Amino acid sequence: MDYLYKVRSRSPLIHCITNYVTVNDVANILLACGARPMMADEPLEMDELESIADGLVLNIGTLNERKAAAMLIAGRRANELGHACVLDPVGVGASRFRMDSVRTLMNSVKFDVIKGNFSEIKTLFTGEEACGGVDADAGDTLSDENCEAETALLKSFALKSGAVIVATGATDIVCDASRAYLIRNGHAMMRSVTGTGCQMTALLCAFVASNPRAELESAACAVALMGVAGGIAYRRLATGEGNSAYRGKIIDAVFNMTDEILAGEADYEIR
Amino acid sequence: MDYLYKVRSRSPLIHCITNYVTVNDVANILLACGARPMMADEPLEMDELESIADGLVLNIGTLNERKAAAMLIAGRRANELGHACVLDPVGVGASRFRMDSVRTLMNSVKFDVIKGNFSEIKTLFTGEEACGGVDADAGDTLSDENCEAETALLKSFALKSGAVIVATGATDIVCDASRAYLIRNGHAMMRSVTGTGCQMTALLCAFVASNPRAELESAACAVALMGVAGGIAYRRLATGEGNSAYRGKIIDAVFNMTDEILAGEADYEIR
Amino acid sequence: MDYLYKVRSRSPLIHCITNYVTVNDVANILLACGARPMMADEPLEMDELESIADGLVLNIGTLNERKAAAMLIAGRRANELGHACVLDPVGVGASRFRMDSVRTLMNSVKFDVIKGNFSEIKTLFTGEEACGGVDADAGDTLSDENCEAETALLKSFALKSGAVIVATGATDIVCDASRAYLIRNGHAMMRSVTGTGCQMTALLCAFVASNPRAELESAACAVALMGVAGGIAYRRLATGEGNSAYRGKIIDAVFNMTDEILAGEADYEIR
Repeated sequence: MDYLYKVRSRSPLIHCITNYVTVNDVANILLACGARPMMADEPLEMDELESIADGLVLNIGTLNERKAAAMLIAGRRANELGHACVLDPVGVGASRFRMDSVRTLMNSVKFDVIKGNFSEIKTLFTGEEACGGVDADAGDTLSDENCEAETALLKSFALKSGAVIVATGATDIVCDASRAYLIRNGHAMMRSVTGTGCQMTALLCAFVASNPRAELESAACAVALMGVAGGIAYRRLATGEGNSAYRGKIIDAVFNMTDEILAGEADYEIR
Repeated sequence: MDYLYKVRSRSPLIHCITNYVTVNDVANILLACGARPMMADEPLEMDELESIADGLVLNIGTLNERKAAAMLIAGRRANELGHACVLDPVGVGASRFRMDSVRTLMNSVKFDVIKGNFSEIKTLFTGEEACGGVDADAGDTLSDENCEAETALLKSFALKSGAVIVATGATDIVCDASRAYLIRNGHAMMRSVTGTGCQMTALLCAFVASNPRAELESAACAVALMGVAGGIAYRRLATGEGNSAYRGKIIDAVFNMTDEILAGEADYEIR
Repeated sequence: MDYLYKVRSRSPLIHCITNYVTVNDVANILLACGARPMMADEPLEMDELESIADGLVLNIGTLNERKAAAMLIAGRRANELGHACVLDPVGVGASRFRMDSVRTLMNSVKFDVIKGNFSEIKTLFTGEEACGGVDADAGDTLSDENCEAETALLKSFALKSGAVIVATGATDIVCDASRAYLIRNGHAMMRSVTGTGCQMTALLCAFVASNPRAELESAACAVALMGVAGGIAYRRLATGEGNSAYRGKIIDAVFNMTDEILAGEADYEIR
């Protein structure tokens, strides 16, 4: 398993149309894993910029009409050029504007990976609008009881969409139509840092862009990487430190990660 | 006094329409105090997003026409729903656009808290445009000589606006029409970190949203929290560290704060 | 040499129209060097805001049509008022929109400093569009062989544009029409932190605004400052730390810098 090594050696240029809240951390975590970030969202230059990229991240946090237009242009161009294409439908159930924008994107762009928390993924799949805003609903977490059913649901969404589906929670699920990785890395304190989800999305794009023949496996690896980094960062916290120090240490852990450390710490099963 | 405890137990969702300079720190300090951030500013989704929030922050740093329109929609909806509503008129005296936008907001939205430095608050109250840009004018600081007069002025602004008024400086004043807290926490080095004012504004909203029957007291508590965190963070600085390390340690100090620590360190008087 | 001292004593207000990726770090490094940041990009208020500033930074990362319009207004006003004016044509070769916007700016605004990596500067000077996106092309680095020719090219661009030209790479060149500083500070790991280039641009504006009679020398000093800070920060990295810790330590090193430290560590020659 050398998915991270491939990212570092190929150094893909990842074009991100993303929110202004967490964009700096997204850029720095891309650099930490060996990729190169390019953030831009003016529709007038989307065709040209996408053409020099290796992958595209569409993250709908702080979406506006201009960004939605830019996403559509960049997404179509990414498809034409065969670039890795990842969608993060942040808070998709929270407004009609987000839901409509995501529907338009899903009808026009073929995504390699669609990643959200369980609420967001279910909202996309069922078409019903959840009411939890940007956070997962309390009921939408994975337990021993519902694990089998949830996994089956995600696989059918993967089949229908043609994308690898990533649903995050206490256990993260990464699946295509036939196989699912259940990944149990990460730490509860990651929820105290804004943007760890956005950062995972960017890692997903860097990994899939660098490992095009192993989409499911490299996507699972990216998810495990984020979780393992969260665990290492937690162990490095000193007395008096809090979520801001933790934020930096997660990125630093990615910077210092190797495929060997990742293989040793990744906690997953395949179903 | 358990205002912070209330924030942590209620975990209010705070919708922020704020500037793109300090938005990440604003999100992380909200998480540090136990609240949940939601940043969004597309007018098309303001009605729906505000309806799932518990509080609204309107911060006019990097204001533009789209954001101004979004603020008006979100502010009116917040009023209809009884959400805590906080205004931070950053640099209001620096341009006619900001002044006009804030006037429109104040005529259309009832705010629970209006918070700025002394220059900004006086600009709002007197209608005269100051010339100091985003910083307080040198003359606009509190001294023993002008304290009585300044406090009376702020109380009359509180009476007129119906809002708790927060005016920040070496001494911070938090008042309603009848009582004023003079708070002397904080550290001069906080001025070397961009966005400590924006962060205080977000804390104000989280506290007032979680303690609706004690607006003045919980607002004073939020202001003291920011200052106490600034003091703790300063004491945690090591040799060779500067304003960037300090920035992170302030947020970390909020993350590790308790009502007990706060009660022990808060330095205030009531007039 | 007291260029940094002058920045700290004059505390210039630097108006930045810049990208939302690195804007927070740009604000904090301005505070670290003793300047004051003001970030704003609404065309409606550009005239008024520029009039209270001491310097203007135009950085075209995440450029959009509104920002491009704001840049033109602010740039013209800065010229009328004699403010220091710095252009950072981030990724100018990557799209026609960026190229056209920069051409319009260069035709309408007189810049004191134009700063980019070698690819960006050559794209501006030759008018040919490079294809490397936001990063320097591999061939566009300075070697012993091409140093003389590159320096001559930059001097002729300085002559033509009337600006001090800063071209960054493993060796940074700062020149006017007759003299060039070749500066060899900095560390390769700075490329793992997003926005170190944007931060250098902001420092350039603060230094030139505070030392108007020594544009070339103070610009060279700002470039050396960024590099020396990068070197000090690298030496302060502990085991397990990565690019996120490094990012903070660079700003901290600027915060703790003095003209004496800078004079002792600056590694440059004049040609």
